[in-house]
Amino acid sequence: MNSSPAFPDLSLLFSPRSVILVGASGRAGSIGRIALDNIAVHGRFEGELHLVNPARAEIDGRLCYRSVADIPGQDFDVALVVVPAGQVLTALRECAAKGVRFAIVVTSGFAEIGAWGVEQEREMRTVAREAGLRIYGPNCPGLTNLNARIGLNISPSFRTDTHAGPIGLVTQGGGLGRAVIQCGDRGYGVGLWGSTGNEVDLDFCDLSHHMLLDARVQVIAGIVEGFKSGPRFVAVAKAAMAAGKPIVLLKVGRSAAGIAAAQSHTASMAGEDAVNDAVFRQYGVVRVDDINELHQTAAAMVQSLRRRVPRSVCVATFSGGAGTLAADLLSAEGVGLAILGVDTATELTALAPDFIAIGNPVDLTTQIFAQATLFGDALDAIAADAAIDAIVLPIPADYGDITLRLAQDICAKAEAHPEKLFVPVWMSDRCGAGYDLLQQKGILVYRSTRGAARVLRQIAALDDARTVASAMPADAFAQGPRPALPRQFDETTAKSWLAACGVAVPRELLAADAAAAGRMGAALGGYVAVKIVSPDIAHKSDVGGVTLGVSGQQQIAAAAEEILARVGQKCPHARIDGLLVSEMIVGGIEMVIGIHRDAVFGPMLSVGFGGVFVEIMRDVAHLHLPVTEAQVAAAVASLRASAVLDGARGRSRVDRQALAASITRIAAAAYAEQEQLAEVEVNPLIVGAGAQPIAVDALLRPAAREARPA
Amino acid sequence: MNSSPAFPDLSLLFSPRSVILVGASGRAGSIGRIALDNIAVHGRFEGELHLVNPARAEIDGRLCYRSVADIPGQDFDVALVVVPAGQVLTALRECAAKGVRFAIVVTSGFAEIGAWGVEQEREMRTVAREAGLRIYGPNCPGLTNLNARIGLNISPSFRTDTHAGPIGLVTQGGGLGRAVIQCGDRGYGVGLWGSTGNEVDLDFCDLSHHMLLDARVQVIAGIVEGFKSGPRFVAVAKAAMAAGKPIVLLKVGRSAAGIAAAQSHTASMAGEDAVNDAVFRQYGVVRVDDINELHQTAAAMVQSLRRRVPRSVCVATFSGGAGTLAADLLSAEGVGLAILGVDTATELTALAPDFIAIGNPVDLTTQIFAQATLFGDALDAIAADAAIDAIVLPIPADYGDITLRLAQDICAKAEAHPEKLFVPVWMSDRCGAGYDLLQQKGILVYRSTRGAARVLRQIAALDDARTVASAMPADAFAQGPRPALPRQFDETTAKSWLAACGVAVPRELLAADAAAAGRMGAALGGYVAVKIVSPDIAHKSDVGGVTLGVSGQQQIAAAAEEILARVGQKCPHARIDGLLVSEMIVGGIEMVIGIHRDAVFGPMLSVGFGGVFVEIMRDVAHLHLPVTEAQVAAAVASLRASAVLDGARGRSRVDRQALAASITRIAAAAYAEQEQLAEVEVNPLIVGAGAQPIAVDALLRPAAREARPA
Repeated sequence: MNSSPAFPDLSLLFSPRSVILVGASGRAGSIGRIALDNIAVHGRFEGELHLVNPARAEIDGRLCYRSVADIPGQDFDVALVVVPAGQVLTALRECAAKGVRFAIVVTSGFAEIGAWGVEQEREMRTVAREAGLRIYGPNCPGLTNLNARIGLNISPSFRTDTHAGPIGLVTQGGGLGRAVIQCGDRGYGVGLWGSTGNEVDLDFCDLSHHMLLDARVQVIAGIVEGFKSGPRFVAVAKAAMAAGKPIVLLKVGRSAAGIAAAQSHTASMAGEDAVNDAVFRQYGVVRVDDINELHQTAAAMVQSLRRRVPRSVCVATFSGGAGTLAADLLSAEGVGLAILGVDTATELTALAPDFIAIGNPVDLTTQIFAQATLFGDALDAIAADAAIDAIVLPIPADYGDITLRLAQDICAKAEAHPEKLFVPVWMSDRCGAGYDLLQQKGILVYRSTRGAARVLRQIAALDDARTVASAMPADAFAQGPRPALPRQFDETTAKSWLAACGVAVPRELLAADAAAAGRMGAALGGYVAVKIVSPDIAHKSDVGGVTLGVSGQQQIAAAAEEILARVGQKCPHARIDGLLVSEMIVGGIEMVIGIHRDAVFGPMLSVGFGGVFVEIMRDVAHLHLPVTEAQVAAAVASLRASAVLDGARGRSRVDRQALAASITRIAAAAYAEQEQLAEVEVNPLIVGAGAQPIAVDALLRPAAREARPA
Repeated sequence: MNSSPAFPDLSLLFSPRSVILVGASGRAGSIGRIALDNIAVHGRFEGELHLVNPARAEIDGRLCYRSVADIPGQDFDVALVVVPAGQVLTALRECAAKGVRFAIVVTSGFAEIGAWGVEQEREMRTVAREAGLRIYGPNCPGLTNLNARIGLNISPSFRTDTHAGPIGLVTQGGGLGRAVIQCGDRGYGVGLWGSTGNEVDLDFCDLSHHMLLDARVQVIAGIVEGFKSGPRFVAVAKAAMAAGKPIVLLKVGRSAAGIAAAQSHTASMAGEDAVNDAVFRQYGVVRVDDINELHQTAAAMVQSLRRRVPRSVCVATFSGGAGTLAADLLSAEGVGLAILGVDTATELTALAPDFIAIGNPVDLTTQIFAQATLFGDALDAIAADAAIDAIVLPIPADYGDITLRLAQDICAKAEAHPEKLFVPVWMSDRCGAGYDLLQQKGILVYRSTRGAARVLRQIAALDDARTVASAMPADAFAQGPRPALPRQFDETTAKSWLAACGVAVPRELLAADAAAAGRMGAALGGYVAVKIVSPDIAHKSDVGGVTLGVSGQQQIAAAAEEILARVGQKCPHARIDGLLVSEMIVGGIEMVIGIHRDAVFGPMLSVGFGGVFVEIMRDVAHLHLPVTEAQVAAAVASLRASAVLDGARGRSRVDRQALAASITRIAAAAYAEQEQLAEVEVNPLIVGAGAQPIAVDALLRPAAREARPA
């Protein structure tokens, strides 16, 4: 996963110079007919087109070949394969022999229906690998390039897909993609749509990467059920951040199966969807929850590209209630409401002294009905305020000519202030001429205030993610001590290794027997903890292997004897390496730090507060490795209970920087050893009991060689 | 607040036999002209109409009177007053003298603009109180009865408000109300709309109560900025539950001012909006967050009235992705996905053996395009399954004739299975003939899957609230011991009172001096806590007035001496009543129980876990008093950390019934003494350390006589 993934050049797939339609048909309503019409009639494909159908000499006057092999010449860009499942593999082999670069297989009935299909797909992959033919599909609707009006697909609706646009759409299934395409009716069309189906070869990440390279695609919208490779997705997300092209993603299938299957405490802290969330946030992928949000957010990202980040927003309306509601919903999403400048307030007051309620929201009242220039003038005054990034404009109802006039004002002022985001919210179900005008002029119109608030927050959050990412020195993570891993994993060796990595641990000594434990405990002084040390016992407390808070040589020795007796009874076959005698850490706050290997994304760091917070409140933050201290500090700050670090309940304030540094050291050490380590858990890491956080207990789990993902 | 509020009969306001228009005008565009046209031209008002305008002899051939006083006769139902602000009071006095029952004052420029207006409103209230004239407004758009097509309003849009319907709408401001009215275009129209403006007399609750009595109103939708009287709102909500008419409410203005202003710990636990949330939930008021949700939820409530509560839902679709997304979003909202019956699965399989993916979601695949009867037959099979309450039908895109056919199937099957809820989700922006048909046939069409999931959850939650409410014996709360309040409030007297109310407290003794504390502590045995007792010290720990965990007569006496010394230094003027010596409660879980008086709703109970949970996580549940044990148990269960009571972290399971009983006893006692007590705080109430929860510390705060709300 450390090698930089390679992505194929797909420009000839999306804009082929030559296309072979394998399974062309003249029969109305057939897949082969629809595909032919979409290429030759409803689209503007201008390259060479070859038809293959063994039963026909010609279709619509176009020559038909009996097979791909019969087509004269060599080197073709795309074969669109629509033949029945049983004939697909033969067609692909012929395509490979013909030097076809890309095969789009729309045919279904493969892995999704059973073993035969799984075997067929394996064969397809072999063809792809051996012959260099790249396969797209099977079981997909095909490919749609509306910017060039090329339809290499079997959709009966392609003829109605008339909007080009700046959004690149990548889906796995077909149905939801079509919903997004049809949202292009509201402006901000989908220019390219790839839908990868069963992904025997080309996958979601390959298509997304192509969108990054296409100059007409400004924002990528994705609908994904699962990633074939997490690291490849991370690579695409990073490249998208670098390119300044937002990825907006709807992840469907939030399965809980991963949580149930997790065997260790740390892994169960995560849960698949929390890991998705964390990875998306970390790499600037904007996550949405529903289809209507997907297009709207993608469109908003396009609109925001050359405008100010909406951190300080002004609400302007003519309905007091709508203004208050907008303020509520913006606040709920954490979007900042601007404080109007003195000049702005003065100007607004001068516009209609007896009517306007100055503040934020600015309530222009129904005076805008009577005073035709009021709305536009007020917009000018607000947009000129340097403290304001965006203007939210709730329009509660359609008032015919009046709302048309307001829409005209919004269009004019948005043009006059191109750096500011104008955010009209059309709250009524009745869309009049004003609504239509805004859409025509490319002003994105929101249909709910909450939807608008959420999108503004997402734009700002993406900017935050970029800032954190750009502040990350690429190799900072690799620095610091890298001591060798111990040969055997138990608490003593784990903590010694952590100490060598620069993490504070308690003063402690390993005693061979109970009497030695007593002597060593007395030498440490004060209260101590006594714990069994065994490579065969991961959960020491469960077998009576821990006694806390004893003092005095005799008492410590007696406690050690009792531990040995209990453990001897409960785990008669465990190898006992001795007894660990540790100073007690008094006070402080317990945290849990875990690193585990997510099946999709690889090494993940999890951070939470101890006990109930992790186990019941599920107040856990995750980060994909590698990370910087700044990211770790932000993750700690994102915990709901994070304020306990600031001295709640009479405690002193915790040094958050030292905490982030310690956690980062643990994560860096684990990351460096990821081939050997399946899991690291420091539980508890006690903060606030000294200058440095102290790793009071630690567990290392070796990687199971056979279970390692490729 | 314990008296049962009275509500006026408003039927003659909404359906008057006679109307006086004060300020009628013939001038185009004027308020008086619009009002006249709305009554006489655009509506179907058939009673007597009298016009008042001192400057005109007639308008449109209708006689004009110079003043209300000049109108012959006595006893009129409604006066619609549209004259300038300076003339309103005179008009109202004349109306009162004429025996007018209701005056609708649309004129603005009163309390909302300053002191003169506030004074004018006070005079209006005097007129209303003394003459029995009920006033609606001022500063409102008037009243709209679309079921009878009567418009007593000044809205230029009334002529386009053509949909009657089952929703009764009550708003305070006007603009947002119009947004809801226009949503009637999608079916489920607003039949009555009252908009109460500045509420000098008739208020939101009066209007809502009228909607309960109007047989054509089936669901009440409300938009409220604030309640004039919390108890009146609670009375309306209870009456609505009893009448089976859901109230769906959008509360705008979630001010944080109340939290900042709260002086005590308990009150600051609440925060205004959390109290609103709690009261709404408790009394079955369905809360929504945005305008588009308001109409949709109200319409859904109408549709749900004679159908099964959607607790067990089946998703049926022809797009795998859309089905998975629906399952995700339903699960996220806590809506249960049904397990299909064996018969259902068999029937579905038989319909199209090679295509359908049986399960929930049921994926009918694009086979429905080819097999015309498949969708309808599958709906029949699913709807016949007794385990299924509702069917969610995601339709990802418009497919022209195909989606029209699906819509026809949905309409037919919804009619054939009238007890089941059919929930089509039209996910595309393109609304074709299928969409239109569903709307025409009164099938509520959702535009987002999340929106549909949220509404289904709301319907089930309302049913839950009704179940809890109907299980409440009206006088159960009044039972139990009611000992007299102590004369003086300190920890000892507070806990004695709680003990007399049936709440367990630690064994403890009040010592007059340090030596007595030593003797008493030794007599109690084991470890004890020593605390200062003073009516002048509320927060004992802050002044060094508490020492925990001492044992032995000498040590206890010494600790008591130190306490007296510290307190004497920090609070030299505090009256010292002695030292409280209490047994230490070992183990258990700390809870915080508070009762305080909310400025709007009156006595509220707050329950949370101690420390970080209340203070940082804000994991607090609130209930309006009185309450039953069942409600308290449900509130405890609603806490995010509630699972700690089930034996997390090696603890034993807490007796939740005993906990609810203790909290209910505290609440009942506080409620009975609400005239004397401003606040009760038990912090901590320790649960799980014995058979009964133990009130380890308690604080009573007397009511400030002058601050008591009316």
